[in-house]
Amino acid sequence: MVERMIIDCDPGHDDALAIILAAGSPNIDLIAITTVAGNQTAEKVTRNALAVCAVAGILTVPVAQGASVPLVRAQRVAPDIHGESGLDGPVLPEAQIELDPRHAVTLIIDEIMSNEPGTITLVPTGPLTNIAMAMKLEPRIVDRVKRVILMGGSYTRGNTTPAAEFNIIADPEAAHAVFAGDWPVTMVGLDLTHQATADADVVARIAAIDSPLSAFVVEILAFFGSTYREVQGFDAPPVHDLCCVAKLVDPAVFETEDAFVGVELTGTWTTGMTVIDFTNLLGEKANTQVATTLDKDLLWNMTIDAISALSKGTHA
Amino acid sequence: MVERMIIDCDPGHDDALAIILAAGSPNIDLIAITTVAGNQTAEKVTRNALAVCAVAGILTVPVAQGASVPLVRAQRVAPDIHGESGLDGPVLPEAQIELDPRHAVTLIIDEIMSNEPGTITLVPTGPLTNIAMAMKLEPRIVDRVKRVILMGGSYTRGNTTPAAEFNIIADPEAAHAVFAGDWPVTMVGLDLTHQATADADVVARIAAIDSPLSAFVVEILAFFGSTYREVQGFDAPPVHDLCCVAKLVDPAVFETEDAFVGVELTGTWTTGMTVIDFTNLLGEKANTQVATTLDKDLLWNMTIDAISALSKGTHA
Amino acid sequence: MVERMIIDCDPGHDDALAIILAAGSPNIDLIAITTVAGNQTAEKVTRNALAVCAVAGILTVPVAQGASVPLVRAQRVAPDIHGESGLDGPVLPEAQIELDPRHAVTLIIDEIMSNEPGTITLVPTGPLTNIAMAMKLEPRIVDRVKRVILMGGSYTRGNTTPAAEFNIIADPEAAHAVFAGDWPVTMVGLDLTHQATADADVVARIAAIDSPLSAFVVEILAFFGSTYREVQGFDAPPVHDLCCVAKLVDPAVFETEDAFVGVELTGTWTTGMTVIDFTNLLGEKANTQVATTLDKDLLWNMTIDAISALSKGTHA
Amino acid sequence: MVERMIIDCDPGHDDALAIILAAGSPNIDLIAITTVAGNQTAEKVTRNALAVCAVAGILTVPVAQGASVPLVRAQRVAPDIHGESGLDGPVLPEAQIELDPRHAVTLIIDEIMSNEPGTITLVPTGPLTNIAMAMKLEPRIVDRVKRVILMGGSYTRGNTTPAAEFNIIADPEAAHAVFAGDWPVTMVGLDLTHQATADADVVARIAAIDSPLSAFVVEILAFFGSTYREVQGFDAPPVHDLCCVAKLVDPAVFETEDAFVGVELTGTWTTGMTVIDFTNLLGEKANTQVATTLDKDLLWNMTIDAISALSKGTHA
Repeated sequence: MVERMIIDCDPGHDDALAIILAAGSPNIDLIAITTVAGNQTAEKVTRNALAVCAVAGILTVPVAQGASVPLVRAQRVAPDIHGESGLDGPVLPEAQIELDPRHAVTLIIDEIMSNEPGTITLVPTGPLTNIAMAMKLEPRIVDRVKRVILMGGSYTRGNTTPAAEFNIIADPEAAHAVFAGDWPVTMVGLDLTHQATADADVVARIAAIDSPLSAFVVEILAFFGSTYREVQGFDAPPVHDLCCVAKLVDPAVFETEDAFVGVELTGTWTTGMTVIDFTNLLGEKANTQVATTLDKDLLWNMTIDAISALSKGTHA
Repeated sequence: MVERMIIDCDPGHDDALAIILAAGSPNIDLIAITTVAGNQTAEKVTRNALAVCAVAGILTVPVAQGASVPLVRAQRVAPDIHGESGLDGPVLPEAQIELDPRHAVTLIIDEIMSNEPGTITLVPTGPLTNIAMAMKLEPRIVDRVKRVILMGGSYTRGNTTPAAEFNIIADPEAAHAVFAGDWPVTMVGLDLTHQATADADVVARIAAIDSPLSAFVVEILAFFGSTYREVQGFDAPPVHDLCCVAKLVDPAVFETEDAFVGVELTGTWTTGMTVIDFTNLLGEKANTQVATTLDKDLLWNMTIDAISALSKGTHA
Repeated sequence: MVERMIIDCDPGHDDALAIILAAGSPNIDLIAITTVAGNQTAEKVTRNALAVCAVAGILTVPVAQGASVPLVRAQRVAPDIHGESGLDGPVLPEAQIELDPRHAVTLIIDEIMSNEPGTITLVPTGPLTNIAMAMKLEPRIVDRVKRVILMGGSYTRGNTTPAAEFNIIADPEAAHAVFAGDWPVTMVGLDLTHQATADADVVARIAAIDSPLSAFVVEILAFFGSTYREVQGFDAPPVHDLCCVAKLVDPAVFETEDAFVGVELTGTWTTGMTVIDFTNLLGEKANTQVATTLDKDLLWNMTIDAISALSKGTHA
Repeated sequence: MVERMIIDCDPGHDDALAIILAAGSPNIDLIAITTVAGNQTAEKVTRNALAVCAVAGILTVPVAQGASVPLVRAQRVAPDIHGESGLDGPVLPEAQIELDPRHAVTLIIDEIMSNEPGTITLVPTGPLTNIAMAMKLEPRIVDRVKRVILMGGSYTRGNTTPAAEFNIIADPEAAHAVFAGDWPVTMVGLDLTHQATADADVVARIAAIDSPLSAFVVEILAFFGSTYREVQGFDAPPVHDLCCVAKLVDPAVFETEDAFVGVELTGTWTTGMTVIDFTNLLGEKANTQVATTLDKDLLWNMTIDAISALSKGTHA
């Protein structure tokens, strides 16, 4: 069965891989790419999304620019990890397609309302501003979306503060709306994505594909690896966002545990934390499937397959 | 000079009077009526807006329905004050115009972006959800709006909690966005609007106009007076929202004082309070003109003129 | 009937008058004076308390120094109102008695536990740190105290922030403990005390007593008047703390209304606010008698009587 | 060198072991045992402390009862883990010594002020109410204490809520005061103490001592093991409090890392969390040595030695 998905992203090195996996997987129908300010400003991440489409040969998927500021808080970006462009490393090609004239939020609502209920999976890999605004502008989308598989949060420690992960603290009120919405949510947080490192052998396998796209991916991983080494002390970079798309390609790619997830909005030191109650200490109803254990081989096998397929022009 | 305005409202008895004053004043060009959940649900207040247009002969102004839920919090409505319909009292006529197909937020953005910069005054008389969403979807509107004149808040005591007024506590994060926005804001709070009571002599003068519209207004004031008497112990009902439009009709209608206004978002007992710093105890820059003293005669004279004009079909 | 009271204070100009009224009133048995950091540091206000005792001839009442820092927050003092000494204006005489060696909290507990239950009224006129610590160290005092009559808070606006009065914001967690305690509390807030101004005619009447003590009081009021004029724009200084003791001298001195009082501990702009729910919007049980309307003549008559009595050596 | 220490505890099964280790270690001079409400009420944990002293032959160390309620919040106890008595399992012997008449806070202040500065280590193994009150009543103790080694908090997940550990959430404001105090603090949190399980081989070694005290300890561990198995799914019970005393017996027992620790006081889901910033994301100065890695063999060897020593009457 082919899965229809919209990726709402802020490329972003790992977002780029997520787009490539979606576009290059035979059982995924990528129906839209929307952007949101996060790793960098809305303008920058939109340009990056178009560049990824250009290099990957993604020419028929609409791309729309979205929210430039969070719902309530001041804006945060992450140049320490993703560079000034938001996708530092490779030379970025010119866009080969026109940006969709609609706001990302409008495109998301249009697609969900015009497709059959229960057919569209939302894959947000940046701050959740667009998704929350779409929920508020058209509350009926909540019943029509098949599932939300989002990258964000953690159940032990954060990466932007000791308590909070970047995508959630970048717009905690939006995250709160998404987790509190009455739709199925899968949370792919740092505890999962830190298992998803692009180790040297993986990079070697990608390089061996020997195409312009594989070279682009290798350059992305080289830059991402360098900032993760310097800023966070990682041996190899964790490709967070890739894991969300991977779940749709093959649900076996990671295990989940059901839990209540609350987003902290009022903490002095903890705002933006995802508080995850695996053992029901709080007495709240479980609202999320929380990703716990990754099948790393499966992740990289499907990703390398997708890069190969796109390199041969088989897909998208 | 004619002032172009959009009223974003949740009729609501005093919202109805505000619409009537805008439509019946020669120096006001009412270019749109948008609705937002507040006094009642979005569906109910939209139906009420269309009913007011029908009875007042407002047939050429677009009316669009807006947000049905607040940005972050759970919904509050005010049936104790406005009844189950949101406009209890008179028999409500059928709508005579079609609802604009656009979402209120889209209509607001379209009008602001297609008119000359500095020409449109926004008059929000309900929760500020639509306005905040418009700011987030199209941040350029902030530079193009001439002024925001909103009904909400107080500088002494609230009416929904001891600290908070209804419109602000109904969507405090939206209110925060509007006050924090870099545009001129006039706040018409309870300290001003409680001076704007529809006393018996005023009602008598309206009744003397002796038209279907004046009869409708009298019925509105009768119901509003009864709930304000029972619930809040007022002798006569304060027509809050009317004061905002009145400021645009004639700036002499109330005095203001410049002050910083902060919206409390994290209080245990005070969320939704407008904290107003007239003497700069907090060291923040003044961001608001806060309404202080009403010229009540001027208010009612212009309102009675507007009802008369609409009754004769002179306007709208 | 003679009322036994402990004053817990931070003199402070108006605290000085409160001590004088207590010592000079025939129906008051002032059994202890305890001090707490507030208007100035604990050392300074203790020295001031001893100076007031010296000038007023209060030689047999134990004076003990108390808390130098609040329970949780950083310390605030009020030199803009009370000067660098905490009692700027008059020349302060040397102490004529030794400080009690006990901590104020210990003295408070000792007195309450050694007197008959229901006989001691606590009159806190500074931050509530000592009182809260006494409650925590010896919870049984709550049942044994007759009443707490405290100066603090307001039901409209604050004086230290737009929302908060000084004594409460100086130690909000302590205030929370006192209001939440299961004992009778009378709150004398700014709305009452701003009625208690020492106008020119009052000052003239005090001056006419023509004693060293009356001269001292006149000097206190002159300094206090000057800071209140400059900092807060008052024509005459409001002698807040005096009103608490006055209530014990003659309950007719002000009216009260029963209400729930919550102390805001988590607000961004409102921490230290007393949220007062006269009309039970919050559904909480009334826990406080809130002072509303002052009989100003009665206040000053009893105060002038007390100054006269102490000037003649009749009391204390 | 002999280390002088005061244990401030809420026995509690692991507190009992901590007392036994302190009393039975040749290089520890246990100068006082103070109690605080925590695992159970102040009365119950005080009785338990006296029972532990009786069975361990601790007859010359003063024991004083302390705070029965937290500084600001409502009381929490932990009967699910420690039973209705707070020390369920063994038959508790009668006390053999009289309780010290002083409040624990007074005893703590007396001992610190009467010993040489820099000689006393405070070992709090319950909520930090007593310690915070002592700091507030006598701020000079902060400069005179050698070190605070406290059990509380965590740097990954909590045990009472997903974010908070019991001792901290039981009195977060007190914990804030202790961490914010200008004295050396070592935090022994769950990440360390969950390494300190009393496995079957350890229990067998204790049983082999074959004394009334070793039998008492085995019974304690049996009960504690059963609740940890049922409530938290542990194979063997983690004896949290024991680790604090162990650090004073031999600093090699665990490694620490310097970090800023903030105690969350305003979170909706996270109040009572210790937010620990190992990589200085927050830009705050490190204020704590955070325990990270346990030498479990060393811990149990010294504990078994202490039980043996006390069983022979060698110490205390």
